[in-house]
Amino acid sequence: MALMTMRNSKPAGLVTYRSEVLPEWVDYNGHLRDGFYLVIFSYGVDGFMDLIGLDAAGRKALGHSLFTLEAHLNFLHEVKLGARLEVRTQVLGCDAKRVHVGLGLYEEGQDKLLSFCEQMQLNVDMAGPTATTFAPSVAALLQPLALAHAGLEKPKFAGRVIALPQPKVAP
Amino acid sequence: MALMTMRNSKPAGLVTYRSEVLPEWVDYNGHLRDGFYLVIFSYGVDGFMDLIGLDAAGRKALGHSLFTLEAHLNFLHEVKLGARLEVRTQVLGCDAKRVHVGLGLYEEGQDKLLSFCEQMQLNVDMAGPTATTFAPSVAALLQPLALAHAGLEKPKFAGRVIALPQPKVAP
Repeated sequence: MALMTMRNSKPAGLVTYRSEVLPEWVDYNGHLRDGFYLVIFSYGVDGFMDLIGLDAAGRKALGHSLFTLEAHLNFLHEVKLGARLEVRTQVLGCDAKRVHVGLGLYEEGQDKLLSFCEQMQLNVDMAGPTATTFAPSVAALLQPLALAHAGLEKPKFAGRVIALPQPKVAP
Repeated sequence: MALMTMRNSKPAGLVTYRSEVLPEWVDYNGHLRDGFYLVIFSYGVDGFMDLIGLDAAGRKALGHSLFTLEAHLNFLHEVKLGARLEVRTQVLGCDAKRVHVGLGLYEEGQDKLLSFCEQMQLNVDMAGPTATTFAPSVAALLQPLALAHAGLEKPKFAGRVIALPQPKVAP
């Protein structure tokens, strides 16, 4: 997969996944089903893991993997069958064993944000499985990314809470 | 699909989807992939739509459907291939055109919460598509559910914001 930094788009980020919308991802409204947005973002996190040494070979060598603790998605536009999509990934923060990522869904090369997903990922020793600090080789790849992305604009849809505009019990 | 109220479990809710974990939902860690939790919750919302007159026949007759605006998921336990799961759905609130739902993932008949998902759903006139108020026939089914569920305990994982415990730029 070609990886590149999108310096001319907002939010910036690394392209970590590309795919066409497949027939099995489309619902009865003729749109990409909400659940499959997160499947696509999940593949985007796999692509991000490749960048920090947690690809299949790295996971095997280290006995580590990432587990998703939490995810938040905003669905901004409908996406139709056959659309060619890409996920752009930005590191929003990290500590010794967690990485907070922001993932934007776009049509390939376009600037219109279709969906935004924020995730907290935990580094896990699969022998337990138990939470553990990032391996030094992983931290050495993650740290420069986190530092580079710290200068990027914070995504508009990060940090949200779901709530009704004016909560009522009944319609 | 059999629907029943789970009065003896927390959080209470209506069972709106049941399925075994399928091979194509499992990732390289041998667990249900994060994205497919949301696919399962999405089918749980379909089951909820059946309860409020927005099943396939209702959608066709009214020209209305629900669009997901926003979703937040907490992943609490790993789920393995072949596990028999159910989604329990609780109405957390609604207004004239939105419904806020809480969805719990459990093994069938068990009380251990495996994952929680909170969603904001918008009623849409598919002729636009444009946001529109619930049809009277839908509101007449939604209102009693919302009133009944207003008395249930608020789910522990509703209303969360994703954040690092102690944000740092570098690991």
